[in-house]
Amino acid sequence: MKNQITNALSNFFFEYETPRQVLVRNRRVGVVCRLIQLLVLAYIIGWVFIYEKGYQSTDTAVSSVFTKMKGVGYTKVDGRESVWDVADYVFPPQGDSSFVVMTNYIITEGQMMKTCPEVCKMLHFCALFSLFFPLKSEAKFSVGVIRQMTGMCVNETHTCEVLAWCPIEDDRKIPDPPLLMSAENYTLFIKNSITFPLFGVTSNLVESVDAKYISQCLYDPKDSPLCPIFRLGDIVNLSGFNFSTIAREGGAIGIVVDWTCNLDLDVKKCKPKYNFHGLYGNPNETDKARASVGYNFRYAKHYMEDSKEKRTLLKVFGIRIDIIVQSLARKFDIIPTLTAIGSGVGIFGVATVVCDLVLLYLLPKREFYKNMKFKYTETHEEVS
Amino acid sequence: MKNQITNALSNFFFEYETPRQVLVRNRRVGVVCRLIQLLVLAYIIGWVFIYEKGYQSTDTAVSSVFTKMKGVGYTKVDGRESVWDVADYVFPPQGDSSFVVMTNYIITEGQMMKTCPEVCKMLHFCALFSLFFPLKSEAKFSVGVIRQMTGMCVNETHTCEVLAWCPIEDDRKIPDPPLLMSAENYTLFIKNSITFPLFGVTSNLVESVDAKYISQCLYDPKDSPLCPIFRLGDIVNLSGFNFSTIAREGGAIGIVVDWTCNLDLDVKKCKPKYNFHGLYGNPNETDKARASVGYNFRYAKHYMEDSKEKRTLLKVFGIRIDIIVQSLARKFDIIPTLTAIGSGVGIFGVATVVCDLVLLYLLPKREFYKNMKFKYTETHEEVS
Amino acid sequence: MKNQITNALSNFFFEYETPRQVLVRNRRVGVVCRLIQLLVLAYIIGWVFIYEKGYQSTDTAVSSVFTKMKGVGYTKVDGRESVWDVADYVFPPQGDSSFVVMTNYIITEGQMMKTCPEVCKMLHFCALFSLFFPLKSEAKFSVGVIRQMTGMCVNETHTCEVLAWCPIEDDRKIPDPPLLMSAENYTLFIKNSITFPLFGVTSNLVESVDAKYISQCLYDPKDSPLCPIFRLGDIVNLSGFNFSTIAREGGAIGIVVDWTCNLDLDVKKCKPKYNFHGLYGNPNETDKARASVGYNFRYAKHYMEDSKEKRTLLKVFGIRIDIIVQSLARKFDIIPTLTAIGSGVGIFGVATVVCDLVLLYLLPKREFYKNMKFKYTETHEEVS
Repeated sequence: MKNQITNALSNFFFEYETPRQVLVRNRRVGVVCRLIQLLVLAYIIGWVFIYEKGYQSTDTAVSSVFTKMKGVGYTKVDGRESVWDVADYVFPPQGDSSFVVMTNYIITEGQMMKTCPEVCKMLHFCALFSLFFPLKSEAKFSVGVIRQMTGMCVNETHTCEVLAWCPIEDDRKIPDPPLLMSAENYTLFIKNSITFPLFGVTSNLVESVDAKYISQCLYDPKDSPLCPIFRLGDIVNLSGFNFSTIAREGGAIGIVVDWTCNLDLDVKKCKPKYNFHGLYGNPNETDKARASVGYNFRYAKHYMEDSKEKRTLLKVFGIRIDIIVQSLARKFDIIPTLTAIGSGVGIFGVATVVCDLVLLYLLPKREFYKNMKFKYTETHEEVS
Repeated sequence: MKNQITNALSNFFFEYETPRQVLVRNRRVGVVCRLIQLLVLAYIIGWVFIYEKGYQSTDTAVSSVFTKMKGVGYTKVDGRESVWDVADYVFPPQGDSSFVVMTNYIITEGQMMKTCPEVCKMLHFCALFSLFFPLKSEAKFSVGVIRQMTGMCVNETHTCEVLAWCPIEDDRKIPDPPLLMSAENYTLFIKNSITFPLFGVTSNLVESVDAKYISQCLYDPKDSPLCPIFRLGDIVNLSGFNFSTIAREGGAIGIVVDWTCNLDLDVKKCKPKYNFHGLYGNPNETDKARASVGYNFRYAKHYMEDSKEKRTLLKVFGIRIDIIVQSLARKFDIIPTLTAIGSGVGIFGVATVVCDLVLLYLLPKREFYKNMKFKYTETHEEVS
Repeated sequence: MKNQITNALSNFFFEYETPRQVLVRNRRVGVVCRLIQLLVLAYIIGWVFIYEKGYQSTDTAVSSVFTKMKGVGYTKVDGRESVWDVADYVFPPQGDSSFVVMTNYIITEGQMMKTCPEVCKMLHFCALFSLFFPLKSEAKFSVGVIRQMTGMCVNETHTCEVLAWCPIEDDRKIPDPPLLMSAENYTLFIKNSITFPLFGVTSNLVESVDAKYISQCLYDPKDSPLCPIFRLGDIVNLSGFNFSTIAREGGAIGIVVDWTCNLDLDVKKCKPKYNFHGLYGNPNETDKARASVGYNFRYAKHYMEDSKEKRTLLKVFGIRIDIIVQSLARKFDIIPTLTAIGSGVGIFGVATVVCDLVLLYLLPKREFYKNMKFKYTETHEEVS
């Protein structure tokens, strides 16, 4: 018994089976098949390996972004000069990857909690409204907006009195030109650090560019594509907006930092590319076509005066900048390589099947080839 | 020599090899093998291609989210009426994808930096503590919390004096019902723009829905599943919470915007789906089972009064909303298609191997088939 | 005709073709081939299946993070004692995944909008500058920074008057030691919830750790690697920084929460690992080598005094903490399993091709084997 097993094992190791094949010497079939096989080979080598880099595995990065704005704005409204520094015009102040630069505002100073007439936004509606609802203490204007009404209506404004922060903000007219046109010259510094966890590669621009260069440079798509300092006006122009339009009503811009890296090359060649685009609405469309124009939010500064709580309300129009890190690293890996080769061999098999179909069903001498290729077991075995 | 090479080359091109095969006419083996082969074929076509769409490559999106709350809250505490607008109840104000809507608060007004007795949170412990530590100027209460103690202890409160913002906040009792129950009617507008970089497709809801529709609609899972305006009460209910519970102690809700798109179809069919779920703790669990209930943070408004710095401290209980964009786009791609076909052919090969095992080792006439399939080179060759 | 089809169909189902093979009884070729085949088998089973878990499909999570700092800081500057609580030292206050803990600051109190001389940062340059630009009302200092100059220059400071928030901040000297060294003992609580959408698995630490444990524990890499409460000093040390250095000038630290889960095992084994690393610049490098040292931002508290708007400007130096969730779940899936098997069979085919090349071109008896393997169709067929 033991002898038998060792015999079988030695047979298994010293033998080797290889398929028997028919070598068909037929020009037409030969050319067709070789062409199909060459095509498959060209696809596997050219497309999968060279073009799509099928021998590499891919990874996306975890990243961290920190921003810093610089620049001082200047306004002169009703003869009052003001200077706006970073602490005044960036929201939030701590350098997030998504932030807003104020470019225009409607200020309502000295608001207190008391009753006052509402601002009429649609004149005829207001007049009508004040007739019908003078005594109702609570009225629903639109979804989710409930005003505390006192029941008193004022004829001059055609609106009713409400309990609110008074005087009520009048945002019917947006300042034009925008008050902080000087924002065009602000600069934005982007610090971006990425890590590809699968490959253990960490990169940040700071490593590849020295401190002296950064202290002097300014981003330019052609001349200094690696400088991480951007002029706000350039960002707006590169994303296809007009600065004075976006500054007036606000808008959202995405700065895509694209780290597409081939880590088979030197890691130092792994450098970011910057793309700029408007995030909401098409900047080339007319204003009416857009579902929602502009970007604004309200912000209040609270203070006490004469022991009463007051606030200064700012309706801030600004450029919201989202820094979006997009990353794709590729590196040689044995698994995708062998998977590609293995499935390529499979497709080779498909080529043989196609050729066999031609040989056995389409050629005039198909019966001859069938006999060459196949050997039949006798049919009578089933009968007996 | 040259002749030889051209000869070999022409032979190579005009020849074509195809494996010789035995056609086994055995019903049992035939049926078994055909069934296995049909199963493999059904798997490749049905599962890999149709069900899992193995002919498509996939991509996830880079996205940008901007939110806007609307609505006015109203409180009447100790006879003092107040109105709360967006600038007062949304943190942070600038429309981030993650924000907090205040629904309840504990306010401590007029805090100044001076010494005052602590608030006693555990009565017996406090009395004990004031006996043992009356003269220590610095005491560690719990990890990381060091109070600056003056050494004076107060009998009425059973606590010692500390240097702190005084009066010290007393948060032992959370207002119930929550002060801003009106938050239920606030509305949330979500602006979401996504880009699939691999396929070069950009989409935002604004394009597929017109401005007029957005100005009127309100999200409803059945009737208007595409409307990007949500009532806060609906969001809370859809995520399985009870509004008055979550409003009292706070909580975190995730709004998942799901862009699962088949880009082989029309891009216009690529529309978001909204899912709502509580982020921490199971809303159906009892309060005790949860490791950490509620959501709150402290927020201070600083002001000057009589040349002294004071602040109003708000312990804010609120609904934290995280908008999470989840995306998966699929599009036809030649590489995964051919990889699937290639590895399918490989699995076909496995089917043949299984059938051969049956034929050569299990059938009674196995020796006969072995002779049909194999041709042996004489063993003596090794000997000679 | 119908008879013919059913006949062909029954033939198809009851027949089965298997390739005819030559069993080469040659020790050298046999051993080589078996070894190659065993290598391929070992690669497929050992590497693809066991090591790389090729039978599993992968998914990354959507996650939500919420943080809470605890601790009180204490400063004594110019004899004035102050206490700093969470509302004072965390920016933003609402518990985001990215936030700043203030550890040092330069405070400029009582700033008003008026004219005052600038602070001279480079003495010689300032003197020169005040000579050349005394009458110019607007001067460009550096990219993006435009000062509104009055034209008056002051000899004592060697600078010119500007319209600005006065007194102008003097940030030439950073307080050393840092004012809030007590920040070392603050604690950070991280609440993290993740969902793997493909597998429908949701996890958060709160589920696997009970409330009582969380209320007492403190993270330690060895003893309590699952405790989500971290001492700030530990975080700084674990990321390779020196606390007093980073506290003085600020810095950025990434806390990577790593959820690498094998979902074929129990979901309860899916637990996070925490890694800490400095985000910008290498902590071991000298200060000069880094392109940009430190982390700071400016923050203003506005107030009214005597009906005039004033502000307290804080230049905040702090530790910015980014919580980065990195996730990879794996689970058995039939598609990658069969793809791996299929392409493995393909690579087996490559092994046979290699052996055939040895057999047919390298062995001395190659002509003999060629005749065994191949059967030629007569060449004259093409001629006739």
